[in-house]
Amino acid sequence: MMDEREILKLVKSGEMTVDDAVHELKTMPFKEIDFAKIDFHRKIRTGAGEVIYGAGKTPLEIVKIIEVMLENGQDKILITRLSKEAFEIIKKDYDIKYYERAKVAIYGELEKPSGLGKIVVATGGTSDIPVAEEAALTAEFLGNEVVRLYDVGVAGLHRLLSHIDELVDASVVIAIAGMEGALASVIGGLVDAPVIAVPTSVGYGASLGGVAALLSMLNSCASGVSVVNIDNGFGAGYLANTINHMEAKR
Amino acid sequence: MMDEREILKLVKSGEMTVDDAVHELKTMPFKEIDFAKIDFHRKIRTGAGEVIYGAGKTPLEIVKIIEVMLENGQDKILITRLSKEAFEIIKKDYDIKYYERAKVAIYGELEKPSGLGKIVVATGGTSDIPVAEEAALTAEFLGNEVVRLYDVGVAGLHRLLSHIDELVDASVVIAIAGMEGALASVIGGLVDAPVIAVPTSVGYGASLGGVAALLSMLNSCASGVSVVNIDNGFGAGYLANTINHMEAKR
Amino acid sequence: MMDEREILKLVKSGEMTVDDAVHELKTMPFKEIDFAKIDFHRKIRTGAGEVIYGAGKTPLEIVKIIEVMLENGQDKILITRLSKEAFEIIKKDYDIKYYERAKVAIYGELEKPSGLGKIVVATGGTSDIPVAEEAALTAEFLGNEVVRLYDVGVAGLHRLLSHIDELVDASVVIAIAGMEGALASVIGGLVDAPVIAVPTSVGYGASLGGVAALLSMLNSCASGVSVVNIDNGFGAGYLANTINHMEAKR
Amino acid sequence: MMDEREILKLVKSGEMTVDDAVHELKTMPFKEIDFAKIDFHRKIRTGAGEVIYGAGKTPLEIVKIIEVMLENGQDKILITRLSKEAFEIIKKDYDIKYYERAKVAIYGELEKPSGLGKIVVATGGTSDIPVAEEAALTAEFLGNEVVRLYDVGVAGLHRLLSHIDELVDASVVIAIAGMEGALASVIGGLVDAPVIAVPTSVGYGASLGGVAALLSMLNSCASGVSVVNIDNGFGAGYLANTINHMEAKR
Amino acid sequence: MMDEREILKLVKSGEMTVDDAVHELKTMPFKEIDFAKIDFHRKIRTGAGEVIYGAGKTPLEIVKIIEVMLENGQDKILITRLSKEAFEIIKKDYDIKYYERAKVAIYGELEKPSGLGKIVVATGGTSDIPVAEEAALTAEFLGNEVVRLYDVGVAGLHRLLSHIDELVDASVVIAIAGMEGALASVIGGLVDAPVIAVPTSVGYGASLGGVAALLSMLNSCASGVSVVNIDNGFGAGYLANTINHMEAKR
Amino acid sequence: MMDEREILKLVKSGEMTVDDAVHELKTMPFKEIDFAKIDFHRKIRTGAGEVIYGAGKTPLEIVKIIEVMLENGQDKILITRLSKEAFEIIKKDYDIKYYERAKVAIYGELEKPSGLGKIVVATGGTSDIPVAEEAALTAEFLGNEVVRLYDVGVAGLHRLLSHIDELVDASVVIAIAGMEGALASVIGGLVDAPVIAVPTSVGYGASLGGVAALLSMLNSCASGVSVVNIDNGFGAGYLANTINHMEAKR
Amino acid sequence: MMDEREILKLVKSGEMTVDDAVHELKTMPFKEIDFAKIDFHRKIRTGAGEVIYGAGKTPLEIVKIIEVMLENGQDKILITRLSKEAFEIIKKDYDIKYYERAKVAIYGELEKPSGLGKIVVATGGTSDIPVAEEAALTAEFLGNEVVRLYDVGVAGLHRLLSHIDELVDASVVIAIAGMEGALASVIGGLVDAPVIAVPTSVGYGASLGGVAALLSMLNSCASGVSVVNIDNGFGAGYLANTINHMEAKR
Amino acid sequence: MMDEREILKLVKSGEMTVDDAVHELKTMPFKEIDFAKIDFHRKIRTGAGEVIYGAGKTPLEIVKIIEVMLENGQDKILITRLSKEAFEIIKKDYDIKYYERAKVAIYGELEKPSGLGKIVVATGGTSDIPVAEEAALTAEFLGNEVVRLYDVGVAGLHRLLSHIDELVDASVVIAIAGMEGALASVIGGLVDAPVIAVPTSVGYGASLGGVAALLSMLNSCASGVSVVNIDNGFGAGYLANTINHMEAKR
Repeated sequence: MMDEREILKLVKSGEMTVDDAVHELKTMPFKEIDFAKIDFHRKIRTGAGEVIYGAGKTPLEIVKIIEVMLENGQDKILITRLSKEAFEIIKKDYDIKYYERAKVAIYGELEKPSGLGKIVVATGGTSDIPVAEEAALTAEFLGNEVVRLYDVGVAGLHRLLSHIDELVDASVVIAIAGMEGALASVIGGLVDAPVIAVPTSVGYGASLGGVAALLSMLNSCASGVSVVNIDNGFGAGYLANTINHMEAKR
Repeated sequence: MMDEREILKLVKSGEMTVDDAVHELKTMPFKEIDFAKIDFHRKIRTGAGEVIYGAGKTPLEIVKIIEVMLENGQDKILITRLSKEAFEIIKKDYDIKYYERAKVAIYGELEKPSGLGKIVVATGGTSDIPVAEEAALTAEFLGNEVVRLYDVGVAGLHRLLSHIDELVDASVVIAIAGMEGALASVIGGLVDAPVIAVPTSVGYGASLGGVAALLSMLNSCASGVSVVNIDNGFGAGYLANTINHMEAKR
Repeated sequence: MMDEREILKLVKSGEMTVDDAVHELKTMPFKEIDFAKIDFHRKIRTGAGEVIYGAGKTPLEIVKIIEVMLENGQDKILITRLSKEAFEIIKKDYDIKYYERAKVAIYGELEKPSGLGKIVVATGGTSDIPVAEEAALTAEFLGNEVVRLYDVGVAGLHRLLSHIDELVDASVVIAIAGMEGALASVIGGLVDAPVIAVPTSVGYGASLGGVAALLSMLNSCASGVSVVNIDNGFGAGYLANTINHMEAKR
Repeated sequence: MMDEREILKLVKSGEMTVDDAVHELKTMPFKEIDFAKIDFHRKIRTGAGEVIYGAGKTPLEIVKIIEVMLENGQDKILITRLSKEAFEIIKKDYDIKYYERAKVAIYGELEKPSGLGKIVVATGGTSDIPVAEEAALTAEFLGNEVVRLYDVGVAGLHRLLSHIDELVDASVVIAIAGMEGALASVIGGLVDAPVIAVPTSVGYGASLGGVAALLSMLNSCASGVSVVNIDNGFGAGYLANTINHMEAKR
Repeated sequence: MMDEREILKLVKSGEMTVDDAVHELKTMPFKEIDFAKIDFHRKIRTGAGEVIYGAGKTPLEIVKIIEVMLENGQDKILITRLSKEAFEIIKKDYDIKYYERAKVAIYGELEKPSGLGKIVVATGGTSDIPVAEEAALTAEFLGNEVVRLYDVGVAGLHRLLSHIDELVDASVVIAIAGMEGALASVIGGLVDAPVIAVPTSVGYGASLGGVAALLSMLNSCASGVSVVNIDNGFGAGYLANTINHMEAKR
Repeated sequence: MMDEREILKLVKSGEMTVDDAVHELKTMPFKEIDFAKIDFHRKIRTGAGEVIYGAGKTPLEIVKIIEVMLENGQDKILITRLSKEAFEIIKKDYDIKYYERAKVAIYGELEKPSGLGKIVVATGGTSDIPVAEEAALTAEFLGNEVVRLYDVGVAGLHRLLSHIDELVDASVVIAIAGMEGALASVIGGLVDAPVIAVPTSVGYGASLGGVAALLSMLNSCASGVSVVNIDNGFGAGYLANTINHMEAKR
Repeated sequence: MMDEREILKLVKSGEMTVDDAVHELKTMPFKEIDFAKIDFHRKIRTGAGEVIYGAGKTPLEIVKIIEVMLENGQDKILITRLSKEAFEIIKKDYDIKYYERAKVAIYGELEKPSGLGKIVVATGGTSDIPVAEEAALTAEFLGNEVVRLYDVGVAGLHRLLSHIDELVDASVVIAIAGMEGALASVIGGLVDAPVIAVPTSVGYGASLGGVAALLSMLNSCASGVSVVNIDNGFGAGYLANTINHMEAKR
Repeated sequence: MMDEREILKLVKSGEMTVDDAVHELKTMPFKEIDFAKIDFHRKIRTGAGEVIYGAGKTPLEIVKIIEVMLENGQDKILITRLSKEAFEIIKKDYDIKYYERAKVAIYGELEKPSGLGKIVVATGGTSDIPVAEEAALTAEFLGNEVVRLYDVGVAGLHRLLSHIDELVDASVVIAIAGMEGALASVIGGLVDAPVIAVPTSVGYGASLGGVAALLSMLNSCASGVSVVNIDNGFGAGYLANTINHMEAKR
């Protein structure tokens, strides 16, 4: 779709027939298999490997998708939300590494870290670590150096302030917290880097499954804070990578 | 109700008839007027003057209630949620002082400050000041010294930390904030005094009229924090006074 | 953080190097272990033992935290939200006492009761007892005498009124109820002590997992009532202890 | 519709043609006018006069409906939710009595009180009186003796208990309260009569426009309590009348 | 509480000491056992047997409560929300009858039906039957004749209309429905008896666990409809019994 | 976008340059003016005139859009959500007809009615008429015969059933109701035509601004019912037109 | 109910007695069995076979309903929301085909496809396929040709646009998506056919069990889109069939 | 706070007294005036001018804040959410430029555009323009080149696709939409730049004041999308500037 002008030029020059052009527009950027349309487009755009969202897919479906990806030239694959049971089946066919706490699996080597600087992944408590690891591993998979600051919630401010150096040095900060989610605002007030806030479903009662933290983060009185879905570590890691690899477009 | 044993003893000794006793139980602690049942019970318990919740009452009703109160021995009256229009009418009959920002009026002299220590009233922003003044004036009316720390929201942490002395010295802290309401958690982590959190309806969009701050405060990761209704400055001031006047009950 | 002036003085006098001072600021009040930053700060402030929030921690993590705490001089530890399974594992290493209904474990001796008076823990029904026991044991752990008034819900008002003496004598009242949560308002109208309201998730249908009781308590028409999170017995017990140990700060 | 058997019998006996029967089924119980279908069915069933819900109708529409009602034999009409402005216009054409606080107008004489006993209308505060008056006037219009107990909220329990006689004697109790709505539960625990709970939109913040009181009442721990819509005084008065006029159906 | 005048008279006449009177006020109407305060008051008021709400109680607790009830003169007991597992244990000690679909158990004989007329229990679908049986058995336990009209939802109106006779003859109608809950409004428009609406948690997606039906019923455009909590069959049956046994109070 | 194949063919044949083709793709189906991108695409697809959503546009903006539309060959324009004030200004420039209750204006002649049959627009009450008229006028504007059945709510079922003929004959039924929204389910059970349900914001309290009716309609137990946004009369009329003009696509 | 005129004529002519007529009205269109009232009415109206909603019914109840249906002349039966366990039991008695992913079973042959055109069933992702298959199989069961376009979510627009031909050719489009539900709006802007939007519960966190997609679809900026309940594939398939079989009613 | 090490060094070297150091920590980065604590810290960090959030401040307060800012060396000031009435007063004292649609005022010259590339601000409809202008002006004030793409909602996809070049070239995209908020997902699937989604309160009914768009955007199936508060154009513009000015931190 994005390259309509190029295709049109080939048609004009006679190098491509009309039917081929229509075909090209329709089939190039993804592959239809039985139960899915696998998008290779993302790699073209971002230069990063492909990602499989494992939730709701059977191990066999995931195996099939890996197979198609490898056939189409992917050499690195990130699988998120993968149960240990599914991993046990998949590892029979493929040599993948599993990170149990994050429920993340990686095929192939991590990208060598690059980008503008380091990405700090901070959590309010220990229960937020699974989401944090999903974010951190995603960022590492895509080629970033990650600094982990876990259990630095605002109720014990000195724990956070003792890491002020890492925070100030960060290129991007991912602030992950459940309960009242105040971590994002406090960090947002301390640093000049973009802060990606990830509410988590950690908590009980009036935390409403993460909605309290979500609302808190959306209402942050600090500027420079934006928010992704509850427990969406992958989304935060992906976006942090994008920002950390910003280049001049002029 | 509370004194059933005493009344029973008077009945037993013949000093009070059965009908009088029943009558006593029913009429003593409040006065029925046309549209209200005015409770004098609170004064007996707390030693503090009476309060009129002005919202939803006409100026004439308020005038009538003041009249009954004065006849029954009150010499100090606090009126909350009083519109300026209502004040203009009431002041023709009574010599009351009006605090416009807080929509609070006071009849009589403030109590001389007493209690265990000072009450700090802190706000996240300037828009929270009306609620804060309702809290502060209530506490002052009931006989407390109040320290006001306004506009110390967590997005500029240095503003809050520069007042760490006042916070640590406080007997009770009232933390008032809208938007993400993180102030309560941060203060809760800094002090050992009880923290009364007051969410405010300041904000827009996903602040949901103060619900975001309310949820945030209820989920505070700091211990020692409890919460009152959105914008309920009076309730916070009243409770702070109660705590600041705790005495041994042994 | 709190003692910056002292540290600055030592630096000034040459008794402490700049690097040591920075180090001191950063490491003194907590200990970083593999998965957590254990806060010893609270003990300094409140004089009470440390607390472990057991939910979402593995038995091994809890064992590790206990170990670090004991090494750092704690001699009493309260563990909340501890499953029986986790207790069975932990008790192999440490001599702790488990209260199954409350899911609370205690290491070491209870503090000898002190404070201004007694803390009453009242519940609306029998199903609220687990939350009530979490509150009561927390208060006892921190050194308070606790009076339990269970199953005194407002639908049978005589049950509550028959205990009017204990209520009136209380230094602090913790009112715990699910369903419509009216207990807090009724008690709030009967006593002059601070009332800490704890909504519980007891109920079904329109109780919305405790939200109905929570809203009810936040809207209490009685003054002197504040609210903590749904099922947060620990928070109520902790705050009650703080209030019951108020001292003059002048 | 209800009388299909009778109509069928007339058809069978030849006393009514098929077309007439169909016509009868369709036109008998209401009258179509320009903008409404006025239902006379209710009077047939309950013996009570007709009611106009005034909200959202122009004065002219109301005048027209009154006209049609009078032509069709109504001699008493109750109009609810009628603004004073609309009343001023309508009274030019009809001799109606207006109750401003309740926003209720009545054409014709009140029914002479009948029924099994008295209906008690109780409110938590003074701000609930408009809803209470809508309920009370509706019940009086339909032929009931009403006892008003206003401002007897549970935060001052002695005010309610001093009226225990009227409550216990009531045939039906309408309990009206905003804020935390605890009044319904407390009354429900004191009386054996049916309690109709009416939440009101009185309150602010977490009262959520009456939703807090509504949820509270739905979760009442007292049996024998049922609930109508927020501020629905008419519905409560109507239902109370129905119950107060129960007769044996055997 | 209710009999204060009688107790006062006995004190006055010297037939009762003050201490006995206080004791009487406190212990008469309920019995404190280890974990509960059993209320015998209800029987005095309504003449009906006692009810145990089984949810959240262990079989042993229920056995203990039954024991105390029998010792105190109860001869009929209704247990609601009783799991089959709990029943299997309890039946070893007591001869109780279990209704599995309704999760209701009954000890003793049903009351002989009395009251003003029959109670109709109608449901929208077959999935609502468990709630309906809880309502029906409660009403039968308390002495009412019950007519069951199941699966008469409004999407097939002819099914409902074919039972118009039973509906019109009913003394009270309990309308039970999940999903859109329209049954209550349609029945409310057909009958002149009080309609008690019970929303159920039957449905999925936007039914929000019964909240959709609840809101629908609260907004019923038919007069004479009131609502109890989602799935609260017991409450509806209890209230229907109260209304069906209305007597003149003059 | 839709005609890419045709454009490609012209490029291929040399009848169109590549730049022209790109230009064509970009500018053909809409016109950019200062503040809007006016879509002429809809007319191509549906053969119906263009619609202006008047809410949030100034009269001058609407005048400008009309001007552009007329220049581009539109001869009929429907304007929805148009305030009377805006109409008064616009009518100075254009000869449009205004329907005040519906807040709809029409420029040009109505389409001659066509389609498979008649569209019935039914409402529960009189307050729903503004939404109903928006739906009805939209359908008429687009070329449909509309039958209006207003005030046929389910609380008076005979009013609805007396119009069973019109309902059964309808090609499409638009069921419009606020409050409990039961009308959609009842009609859905009576007819075999598609039913488009429109919840309205009519009601108060627990109607939550139309959300109660919306949820009710989404949970309809009748098949063949689908729902549009609260008060979205236009959307219902537009969709009804589409369905009423279905043609074979084989 | 629908045929009252015919029945009346037979009564009039003496061909039917009054009692028979009443009986006829009551029993004809459905059959009462022990636990349900089976509606044969739908077949008369739509000509399609009967449907059993399997959720909440025991296998034995379903077997009984099938038996009654077959006895009453049904030869095709669709069972939705049928667990595999239930299927295993039912297949012992009846020769039914089970579609596991959709949890749908079909007895008898599919209808031969008819109608105005094809129905496109499109999904945003692979996790939406179970709902999509419920819709597709329902439409096929009722006699429609279905085109499946799965995994064409808007985040990879080229996947959707490559199928523009099928979309434009569709008679009706069913757009099924969870998460942000944008698929319905994008398709609604591309086609002139009616679009039935089905939100799914696919997603996590702020998807709120499908409510986010539901709200998104209700607010679609595209005209011609209407919405059914979350995960309601059956309802969408049923309605699509109705629309695809529209005929002139003039 | 940030510079504690530097301050410590000065103390150590004797160049600063302890009291001065404490004073420095407390007063340096902001200025306390009567009603606010003005933060100059942001400028130090970001190099950009200061911002005044105008909502809830009186014109006189704003004038005072401007005065203090100018005295402290600010030469550019952005005022958001400024009513026209307030502007009229302020402009008497200061030479500021007012953008009425955005309710934004700017004092001083805009920064010369710099950064990595252009920021695209896209809206779904014309009603979203006020929020878009707040975002665009903020970005321009902070020194960015902004491309405005207004009224490119997904219901007319060709309007958006015709601007594919601008989108693909963007350094950051701000996607602003009300109603169903699908714009963010569609753009997120088309570009590789970070997408900042801004839900707006544009819409009615089930848009719930922007909550529908907010939820939609949080659930975006496109990666690289993050969200700010409803109508928070300033926050989006501020964050876009931060990202557009990313520099290497190594």
